[in-house]
Formats: sequence, structure tokens, C-alpha cells
Amino acid sequence: MRLAYSTWPEITAFLADSKTVIIPIGSNEQHGPMGLLGTDWMCPEIIANAAEKVASETGAAMMLAPTFNIGMAQHHLGFAGTISLRPSTFMAAIEDWVLSLARHGFDHIYFLNGHGGNIATIEAAFSQIYSHYSYNNKTCPLTLKLKNWWDLPGVATLCHTMFPVGHGSHATPSEIAVTYAAYPDQVRHVELTPKIPPTGPILDALDYRARFPDGRIGADSSLATIALGQQIIDTAVHGLLADIKEFSATVKPA
Amino acid sequence: MRLAYSTWPEITAFLADSKTVIIPIGSNEQHGPMGLLGTDWMCPEIIANAAEKVASETGAAMMLAPTFNIGMAQHHLGFAGTISLRPSTFMAAIEDWVLSLARHGFDHIYFLNGHGGNIATIEAAFSQIYSHYSYNNKTCPLTLKLKNWWDLPGVATLCHTMFPVGHGSHATPSEIAVTYAAYPDQVRHVELTPKIPPTGPILDALDYRARFPDGRIGADSSLATIALGQQIIDTAVHGLLADIKEFSATVKPA
Amino acid sequence: MRLAYSTWPEITAFLADSKTVIIPIGSNEQHGPMGLLGTDWMCPEIIANAAEKVASETGAAMMLAPTFNIGMAQHHLGFAGTISLRPSTFMAAIEDWVLSLARHGFDHIYFLNGHGGNIATIEAAFSQIYSHYSYNNKTCPLTLKLKNWWDLPGVATLCHTMFPVGHGSHATPSEIAVTYAAYPDQVRHVELTPKIPPTGPILDALDYRARFPDGRIGADSSLATIALGQQIIDTAVHGLLADIKEFSATVKPA
Amino acid sequence: MRLAYSTWPEITAFLADSKTVIIPIGSNEQHGPMGLLGTDWMCPEIIANAAEKVASETGAAMMLAPTFNIGMAQHHLGFAGTISLRPSTFMAAIEDWVLSLARHGFDHIYFLNGHGGNIATIEAAFSQIYSHYSYNNKTCPLTLKLKNWWDLPGVATLCHTMFPVGHGSHATPSEIAVTYAAYPDQVRHVELTPKIPPTGPILDALDYRARFPDGRIGADSSLATIALGQQIIDTAVHGLLADIKEFSATVKPA
Amino acid sequence: MRLAYSTWPEITAFLADSKTVIIPIGSNEQHGPMGLLGTDWMCPEIIANAAEKVASETGAAMMLAPTFNIGMAQHHLGFAGTISLRPSTFMAAIEDWVLSLARHGFDHIYFLNGHGGNIATIEAAFSQIYSHYSYNNKTCPLTLKLKNWWDLPGVATLCHTMFPVGHGSHATPSEIAVTYAAYPDQVRHVELTPKIPPTGPILDALDYRARFPDGRIGADSSLATIALGQQIIDTAVHGLLADIKEFSATVKPA
Amino acid sequence: MRLAYSTWPEITAFLADSKTVIIPIGSNEQHGPMGLLGTDWMCPEIIANAAEKVASETGAAMMLAPTFNIGMAQHHLGFAGTISLRPSTFMAAIEDWVLSLARHGFDHIYFLNGHGGNIATIEAAFSQIYSHYSYNNKTCPLTLKLKNWWDLPGVATLCHTMFPVGHGSHATPSEIAVTYAAYPDQVRHVELTPKIPPTGPILDALDYRARFPDGRIGADSSLATIALGQQIIDTAVHGLLADIKEFSATVKPA
Ligand code: NI
Ligand code: NI
Ligand code: NI
Ligand code: NI
Ligand code: NI
Ligand code: NI
Repeated sequence: MRLAYSTWPEITAFLADSKTVIIPIGSNEQHGPMGLLGTDWMCPEIIANAAEKVASETGAAMMLAPTFNIGMAQHHLGFAGTISLRPSTFMAAIEDWVLSLARHGFDHIYFLNGHGGNIATIEAAFSQIYSHYSYNNKTCPLTLKLKNWWDLPGVATLCHTMFPVGHGSHATPSEIAVTYAAYPDQVRHVELTPKIPPTGPILDALDYRARFPDGRIGADSSLATIALGQQIIDTAVHGLLADIKEFSATVKPA
Repeated sequence: MRLAYSTWPEITAFLADSKTVIIPIGSNEQHGPMGLLGTDWMCPEIIANAAEKVASETGAAMMLAPTFNIGMAQHHLGFAGTISLRPSTFMAAIEDWVLSLARHGFDHIYFLNGHGGNIATIEAAFSQIYSHYSYNNKTCPLTLKLKNWWDLPGVATLCHTMFPVGHGSHATPSEIAVTYAAYPDQVRHVELTPKIPPTGPILDALDYRARFPDGRIGADSSLATIALGQQIIDTAVHGLLADIKEFSATVKPA
Repeated sequence: MRLAYSTWPEITAFLADSKTVIIPIGSNEQHGPMGLLGTDWMCPEIIANAAEKVASETGAAMMLAPTFNIGMAQHHLGFAGTISLRPSTFMAAIEDWVLSLARHGFDHIYFLNGHGGNIATIEAAFSQIYSHYSYNNKTCPLTLKLKNWWDLPGVATLCHTMFPVGHGSHATPSEIAVTYAAYPDQVRHVELTPKIPPTGPILDALDYRARFPDGRIGADSSLATIALGQQIIDTAVHGLLADIKEFSATVKPA
Repeated sequence: MRLAYSTWPEITAFLADSKTVIIPIGSNEQHGPMGLLGTDWMCPEIIANAAEKVASETGAAMMLAPTFNIGMAQHHLGFAGTISLRPSTFMAAIEDWVLSLARHGFDHIYFLNGHGGNIATIEAAFSQIYSHYSYNNKTCPLTLKLKNWWDLPGVATLCHTMFPVGHGSHATPSEIAVTYAAYPDQVRHVELTPKIPPTGPILDALDYRARFPDGRIGADSSLATIALGQQIIDTAVHGLLADIKEFSATVKPA
Repeated sequence: MRLAYSTWPEITAFLADSKTVIIPIGSNEQHGPMGLLGTDWMCPEIIANAAEKVASETGAAMMLAPTFNIGMAQHHLGFAGTISLRPSTFMAAIEDWVLSLARHGFDHIYFLNGHGGNIATIEAAFSQIYSHYSYNNKTCPLTLKLKNWWDLPGVATLCHTMFPVGHGSHATPSEIAVTYAAYPDQVRHVELTPKIPPTGPILDALDYRARFPDGRIGADSSLATIALGQQIIDTAVHGLLADIKEFSATVKPA
Repeated sequence: MRLAYSTWPEITAFLADSKTVIIPIGSNEQHGPMGLLGTDWMCPEIIANAAEKVASETGAAMMLAPTFNIGMAQHHLGFAGTISLRPSTFMAAIEDWVLSLARHGFDHIYFLNGHGGNIATIEAAFSQIYSHYSYNNKTCPLTLKLKNWWDLPGVATLCHTMFPVGHGSHATPSEIAVTYAAYPDQVRHVELTPKIPPTGPILDALDYRARFPDGRIGADSSLATIALGQQIIDTAVHGLLADIKEFSATVKPA
């Protein structure tokens, strides 16, 4: 069940059975000469949408929130098209999303993440949210979880089998393959030089551009294909459904 | 040209010719028993996407940013599924979007808005952005514009002709028609009681729910049809293209 | 009853009968070569003070708070004497005023505004205040209202009759006339060139100064006279008293 | 020269000769059964207005900003009519006032303060303003000064001579006398019990109200008279003019 | 009892008998050519540690928190090694320390301060903390106190007897003597020119450096000796123990 | 060279040769019945102090800042003695430390961390700092690094060899051993039940206390001994010196 494509009475009805909601979260940032700027929010959205379809077909409704499409990508601002939130803004926005959903009774909130650069700030935001309860000695109804799609059961193994060389860590063939599978009309054919670009630390935007001139980090994006992307999506969907099932079943101790 | 579906070198190339970017912005909030929670961000996205297609077919590329899908909807929080940003968070996020796009050279930034409750905060955010320049006696390269889709040339007249009675101001047949036209599988058939609900002031969430029990304000949502929605979209697309053309041509005085 | 000119036991006594308070709010900003920098906070103060006198003479006490004299005027910072709050500061200050008054039991808080540039930020501040209640599912005792003095019953019609040409939108003859009527020793006689200056959009401070070299927007300030100002005040006073009466009588639904 | 009662070209002209501006700053808070809620902002306003008149008569123009009438009075919130800014808000507002005035070229900014509870926060605000320059190794053009009116040359000695017993520290006969002298129609006659109330520490609002039931701290407000108030004003005016003259002459080392 | 060197069950046990906690607070900033950068946090730490030893030997346990070692020192940033918090950050951090300790039941929180530049901001922070209660009409369990070590009973008199000339106000022989007594291996021998440096106002960092070229204000640091420092410590320890005893005994009115 | 135990001219001299500074950073939080509340800030301080001694003996001076002793520990607030900063405060404070040190010319800033709960927020703070440069297209002189002491070369291997069973993740025998080695008078002998406590996720404070009743997570703290602690320190010191050497040598690309 996709929240944005529902009416409020439908959400109210859903809440009688389940308090779990999934939020695809990513970033809109450069992904080299072959990857779409939306790659990092598209991947979790694609996987979550596919999982939602499976879930609804099997009668086990899963609630899917709208996509949180802009994250923390300050280091990519040297490349045109990147849109970033400062960490402080990102944290405030995550808090408002969570508190809005909690207002309605959702108490298991699962962020399916598509951008490594988001991880630290999302976790800091969780701590900020918990702080309201922790400083005030109040019971917190919320269980918050962050999961990167590439950490879903089975996905990393698959990707490394597919791309034993040149997977890298930014503009990877696996993430680009996922978007190509979902948007076949968006496949790009670009000569990459070098095939496998350098790796290195991530600091500020100008430093990043100097180290990684075309935006990629250690990744040969040209290995991405529609077929491989579909395989990754299929594996991720199964992993996600299993992970949500387990997550929904967790209960906080009294 | 849709930013998220482009690569960074493609954005760089676009910027050689134009510095204008369009951001669909809305809200995810209850729209009564017949309207989708996503109505307010879907409407500007639908219209902007359609306009982008027309533009690209005519060779006059228009840059369309990802959709800003969560806005200021504190008054709707009494209804399940609503997700809101506090005004302070919303302002910070708008500022970060604008400063990111400005970093790349975009200097005409046009927000196509789908939610009346966003207007005040977006304008306050614009002033906050301008303040950095105004307090410091610095030249500001930016021209920011907010336009509600229902204020595009021709749209209001059309909607009032279509719905002379029962248009109302929230969960209106016109906005719901737009979403039905775009997502025909999402049409809802619900008995509305009363057909035309009350109107009144908008304060906090519990007050809102008490005044407007099913969420609608003065609107008979059941008047919405796919065909009427398509007419509205067509008119809005023409209005948007004209408005952007005029906006892009504005030059700040030296 | 003027709050600042009362003692706290007198306020306590007042609260036994009424929970309504009026706050004149404006801005301190350039008003062209003939208008006082204080015009925008003086106008609501002048009108509210006059109304308070009438009210107290008729035994229907009205509580008048001190004047909130600095607002959001970033666009006027290119002209000497302008003092502005950033929107974020303005919102925080409005919130603190409201929460202070609410602490004592005032629950109908009416801002009589004198500056168009304040409107968006004041409304955003109202939403920020309501948010505390809306996110937390708590009953909000407050009813907040913003009213521009020129929107009081009868005022706009009168002003347009007085100044069919050259009323404009900044440093208008009507607002300047109000201050001249209240402070006859402050009348300025200045040759304005051109009589009627240009109109245009409002962006940042340097842009504003380039578009509107003497600060006026479309307004022939020289049409202002003491006599006309007094007429406007008289009309506004009646409008204000009626509007407050209606406002005080509003009750939130249970 | 009163800034709010001037036009912008007049301020520009003033700035050719002087860069000093005086801001009366106070608080709107309970002052016991005999003192006006506005006492703390009225006192510096009364003294500064009187000084400004003297200055302009002697041809030595002094620039007087509008009054900053709400300060930090959280401890008085237990008494009706008190309006307070939180310290964080107060600091932001002071910063915006200062940066606005600095934008026009004022570089000697003098706050004439009427409320002891403001002192710490105003000084913290000054440090916050200086920080922008200090962290960034930039030359700061500003010289900021805080002066309590009771610390002006001659004032404290006079007050203690007038009120050797029962001066106290809140709702003092000296501050109330100043307001009575300026607003003779506002004199209150109230039986105070006890004549001289207790003293003690200042913490939060409920603690304050429990310690100081009628709001006064160690002060016999009933000693205030119009005649004594006028004497205090006269002394303060001379002190202020001397202090400003000295302040205006200070130059920062190169 | 030193909090950081205790286990949580030991703290729980302590709280059965006492709710008072002492926080040494200072700054890390230049102290001229002879004073250590840590002088201002070392002094209160040294005194509090010594007092804690005396207390524990006499069976009257005193709870000593870790040292808050970075304060508000923007004016010293022109000299290498200074680390400062902006006032807004400093306030937030003080609030978090206080709310953490209050969470466990500490309700008498005593800051032993070693830096004059901290005073205003710490007091503003106290008001910010109290505000949460004061705006909301809630009983505040906290009693907060700020005490500078040089204001402890007996200390100022002793220091002025020791250093009748050249005590000054920054890098004073008394504070440097305290650190020399505690860290005899840190004594510096430096030729100071002039022996007694100028005094003056404190503004921003570059202004400070221009006025006070070696960082000292009116202080002949070379008068500091280990023996004198030990005398000061001994006096301060007695003063602190007495002051805490009195403080712990204070009770808020019901 | 310990910054706090230096004078400013000594720091200036140091900066002629090196721009690297090490900041021990940790937390003050419960560590079960046997661990000190200060464990997490003591460990990096102990290791860094020891390394600094080695460095200074070998003539290769290393600059050691004061210890940042309070971190993000909201989840431990259910246990007495824990002091935590909210993530937003922690970020602001880290930023102020960094900007202060950068002001003096330090451009390689190395945080030696002792608390897992700090990691996300410190990394978010780094991104916040870099953002100032990245949004504004400015060259950032800073290289920031976070290193947990247990990730120093050789340390993890050693600890797992020492404690193959019962190492756990909070109140671990390795961290407690380090503090026991440094403070032998602080060894605690407590019967732990069970020897090895449960593991689980970390959410808010009350949830934490319910899951981990004595505060430990999977750790048999009673395995800690002074001798083992000294071995860990020795290994960590070597690892730290090597890591700093490498870090200091890194150069940002032009
Ligand atoms: Ni990616
Ligand atoms: Ni809508
Ligand atoms: Ni005006
Ligand atoms: Ni007073
Ligand atoms: Ni000192
Ligand atoms: Ni630990």
C-alpha cells in the first residue's frame, strides 16, 4: 500500500493491523558520466515499490511512504545537478517525518536508504528523536531502523559476484544497473576514462572534484546492464520483505 | 529535461543555454475520503512533467528538478497519513535546495506549488535567502518565484466554469480531477456526506478535525472526473510554459 | 486598556472578563523621501490607540499590548534607517510574545499589522506555534489572527476613493497621511521625481534599490494630508472595533 | 534626531557626521501593584527622548533608534501582563538590530538598558556578534556598549540619597518615579503590604512568585513621586549626554 | 566523590543523601607569555578537586562532575591555542549538562567558574533552562548557581593583599599562581614588557590583540609563585566548602 | 606537546613546523557496575597522553588538545551519572572547536574517539563543517579525521586475543582494563550477574535500561586487569603514533 496513493480513511484502516511504515530515502547527486542524478533515491524507491507489489499480491499489506529524495551530499556539490541538505536541515526534516507518522500511530519506522553519505546523519537524527524521551524519562513508542538496500540479505554477495572487479563505491555498476532496469530508456553509453577511477577519502566538494574528476569512486559504471539490474532488484525485494517481516515483529521490552 | 534523470555532464551542458529550473513543490496530506494523500505534490509534478515533455518536443528544453513532496501541513495532522514539516524545517530545506542549485549556476528558480498552506512559509524562506545578501550589501544573483498551479493563466477560470458550485478550498474537485487524470486506477467512489462540507478558518490540527470532520473544506470532491482533470492539465501546461518563458526572460537591474 | 500602562493586578482583573489582546505590529523601514521610517508600526499603533480610547469610553475595555515595532524588511536594507529581523528571528519573537500572553490566559490574540512584508512570516509563525499542539495531539487554546489595517472594513474603499491615481504599494499616500494626522509636526514637503514611481517585484535589497531609487513603489506620497489621514483613522477605528468584537466572540469547536 | 520620525535621506545625511546610535532597551514585565508593566522600557525611552531634545537644541544631533521594548523576563511570567523573549530569541533579535544598523554605517551602537534581567543576554549577544569576526580573522567595525540608566553618572548616588531605605531591586521607587514624572496620569495609590517586601535570589517564574508574592523585591514603590522622578530624569539626561559624547569619541586601534 | 571516577550504582547511592553537584567550568584561552592556555579551567578544577578530597576525608561527600573545559572566549581567538564556543553553542551545551544531571535527580547544580568571559553566557543559559518551566507554568525542581572561584569567601581579599599592584584582570598573578602550585613543572620564566600592560575594553579578537599585544590585561603575571598559589588554593577550598554547604541547604518555597 | 599546558607563543612556535592537532573525544556515561563513568573519555586521553610523551621524547612533537569529555549518550541517560549532549549541540560544539583551531592555522584535525555512540554525530559534524565551503565553492583548508582508539593498528586483534569470550560492546573488559591500568586505585571488584549480559539494539534510554539492566552489553567487565590494560595502551600508543604520522603527511589535491 503506497501512502501517497491512499486516502486518509484507508490509512486509518491499515493502522488497525500494522504500525510499520517504510520510507525510501536517498539523495540527488552526481553519479558520474553514466549514472542518473536520482540514482540514490531511485534505487530504494524501485526496490520498495516492487516489494510493495509483491506484498499486496500476497495479501500482506506493507505501507510505503513517499520517497525522501534529497539527502546529505555536500561533497558532490562540485558537480552540476547535485542537491543537498546540510546535516542540520536533514536531521530536522527526518525528525518531522518521523513525528508526523508517529502522530498517526506508526511506531515501527524503517528507512530503506540508497546513499552512503546519509548514514551518519540519519543515525544522528534517530538519536535526536530519542533524546526527547531519554532526557525526560519518558517511554518512547518508536522503533527506528536504517537499512541500506545493498545490505539487504543476499544483495552484497550477488553484486560482488556480478562485479568482482570495478564495483567501487560511488556510481557503482550495481546501483546504476538497478536504475537501468527500472528505466530502460535511461541507459547511457559513455566512454569512461579510466575504466576504473581512483578511490580515496571524502572531504569537501572541491577536494572531491580534484580527486575524482568525473565523479566516480573506484567504479566501472559501464558494467551495468538492464538484466543484471533486474537480478539485483529481485534479490533485494526478497531481502526487504524478509527484513520488514522481522522488523515488524520486534517488540520493545516493558 | 528532468534533472534526476540526467547525468551531471548533461546538466552542465544545459547550463550553457539556460539558468532556469522548475521545482514542483507540494505536500503529503489528507484530501478527504476521495482524494489521495499525495494530491498536492502530484498536481504540480503532473503538470510540470507534461510541460517538460512539450518543451523537449519543441526543442526548448526546460529543466525540471525532483519533486519537493513534503510541505507545511500541521493543520492536517489530525488525519492519518499526513506528513508535515514545521515551518522552520521547511524554510531550512528550501534554502538548501536553492543554494545547491545556485551553486551550479541556476539563477532563476521557479517553485510550482500545489498547496495553499505552503505559500507563507515558502515566501518567508525566500526572504531568509535574500537576507544573506541584503544584510551584507552583496549582489544577489537569484530570482526566486512562487507560483501556485491554480494561478497559472487560464486555470482558475476553467475550474470555476467546470465547478460553479462546490469547488471549495480543500480536496477540491479540480485538484482531485488532475490526479485522477494522471492515475486513472486511483479513482475513488465514495458517498460524501454532506455533499458540500462547511468552510471556516484554519488553525491547529484538532480544531481542524472538529470543524471539518472528513477533511474537506467546502469542496464536493465527487465532481472530479478523469476527463475534466485532463482539460485542467492541458490548460495548466500551456499556462506554465508561457509563465516560465516570461520568467526566464526577466533580468535584474544592474 | 493599554497593557504597558497597567499594573499586573489590573491585567489579572481584566482577564476575568476577556481573553482578547491586540498587538500592533509593523516595521521600521524607509518610506521614501516623505514618509517616516516608523510609518508601518505607527499606523497600527495610531489606529489601535484611538480605538482603545473609544472602547474605554464606552465601557467595553479592549486590551492593547505594546507595539511590535521591528518586522521583516530585508528588502529595504539598502536605505539608511531600515531595521529588519530575519524571518527566523521574527518567527521566534512572535512565538515568544504569543506564549507569554497565553501563559496569562489570553487565548484570542489579534495582530494588527502595518507592513505587507510581514504577512508571510507572521503566518508562518502562527503555523509554527500551532505545530507544538498539532504534532502532539494536544488541544490548542489559542486563536491567532492577523489583520492588516488597510483591510479593516471600509478602509480600502476609502483610500482608493481618496487616491484613485498614485496610491501605489509602498510609501502610499494613505499610510503617510495616517502618520501626518497623528504627528502633524512631522509633515514633510519634498519635490518627488517622478511623481509616480515605477512598480515591480520585490527581491533582495540591492535589487530593490536599483528598481526603486527613492524607495517608493508606485506611490505619490505627496498626496498625503493631515485631513485625509484623520478620515482614514476614523474609518479604521470603527472597522477595528467591529472586527475585534467579532473575533472575541469566536469559539473553537469542542 | 529620532530615527523612526525621520526619512531615509535624513538618516543618510546624519551619517555624514556621526556613526553613533542609541537604542533604548528594556522589558515589559510586572512591577508590583504600583508600577507599570512598561516601566523598564519606558525609563530608558524617557531619558533618551529627553536627552535627544537637549542634544538637538544645542545643535549636537544624537540619533535615537526606536525602543526595543521586550526583553528577557522569564522570571516574571508568573504575573499577568509580562511578555518575555527567551534568551536565544533575544540574542537573535539584538543581532539583527545591530547588523541592520551596521549595514547603514553606524559603528558605535549604544544600548541604554532599563532591565537588570537583560544584562547577561545582551552581553552574550554582543559576543555572538563579535564571533562572526573573531572566528574568521576579520576586522570588526563595530563598537557595542551596554549601559544601564541607573549606572549613568550621578544617578545611583542621587537615588540612594532619595531612598536610603526601601530602594530595593525590583519595582524600585526610582524607576517608578521616572515613569510617574513622564506620565503623571499614571500615578497609582495602592496600600503596600508589607511596605518593604523580602529580597532573595531570582530563579524561575513559580519560584519568583512564591518568594515575592506581589512582585516587588525589597522595594517600597510607594516612595515614588513625580517630583523625585523629574530630578532623576534630569540627572540621567546629563549623564547620558556625557557618556555618549565619550563613547562616540572612542576609536578602535588599527 | 568524583563523578567520572565512579560507577553508576555509586552515583545512585550518593543521590540517596544529596542532590548537589559541582561543575568546574572555565575556558581554554591564551593567558599571556607566562600563563597556560588551560588556566581558566584548571583553576576551578584544582580548587574543586582539593575541596573534594577534604570533603571525603571528613565524611561529607561532595559530588564533583567532570570539568567543562571550553567556554566563551571569542575575544582571545587572535592568539594561538584559544578554543572557544560561540555563546549559542555554549548555552546549548550547558543546558544539556544540566538536563542530564537533573534527569538523575540532582537539583542543586553549582558551577564553579574560572573565566570572567563565561559569566554572561552562563547566566543567559540558566534563564534559557528556567524558561521551559516559566512559559509553561510548571514547577522547576532546579536551583542553579554560578560562582567564580575568585569570589569565594576570602579569596579576593587575599589576592589583593598579595598583589596590591599589577593584579590586573587577565593572566593575573593569582590565577597563574594557582596553576603553578598545582603543576610546578609548568612554571614559566619570561621577561614581560612592559611589566604591567594596559587595560581597556573587550570587544572582538583583532581589536583585543591590537590593544593587548601579549594577551595580558593589566596583569604582571611574573608575580605568580608556587607558594602564593598554594595559599590561594587553601583559602579557596575553605570558601568553596562553606559555600556549597550553604547552597545545598537552600530550599525552594512551595 | 599538550595544548592546555602551553602558552600561546609556544603554540605559535609549534605551528611553524606542524599543522596537526589531536583531540581526545569521548563520553561520560555509565559503564556497568565495574566501569567508571569517565571510561570513554579517559581511554583516548590516556592513550594520547602516553603517545604525546613518547613523541616529545623522540623530538617529534605532537600537539594534544584538551579532552572533549561529553559526547552523545542519550541512550545511557537511564543510569545515574551519565551526561549527554543532544546530537545538535554536539555538532555545534565540534564545529566551534574545529573553527577555533583552524583560526590558528591547524589544518589536520584528528579526533581520537572513545565512544561508539559518538561516531555518527561526529561524522555529521564534519559534513556540516565542510558544507560551509562546499555550498560556497570555496577551497577548504581542513582535513578532518575520526579514529576510534580500538581501531588503531593492532588493538582489535590484541583485545580479541585477550578476551575471546565476553568482550561484548559496552563496558568491555578492554576499555575498563585501560582505565584500571591508568588509575590503579580505581579498580572495582563486583560480582556480575550474569557474567555475560545480553546483547541487542540501542534505542532510547528506557528501552536500553529494560534490555540491559546493569548497563553492560555482552561484556564481562570482570576480565579487565591492570596488566592487560597496560598491554592495550602500549599497542594503542604505537598505533596512534603511526596513524598520526601518516595523517599529517596527507595533502589535499590542488
Ligand atoms: Ni549512489
Ligand atoms: Ni490540495
Ligand atoms: Ni508602509
Ligand atoms: Ni524595572
Ligand atoms: Ni583567566
Ligand atoms: Ni565505553
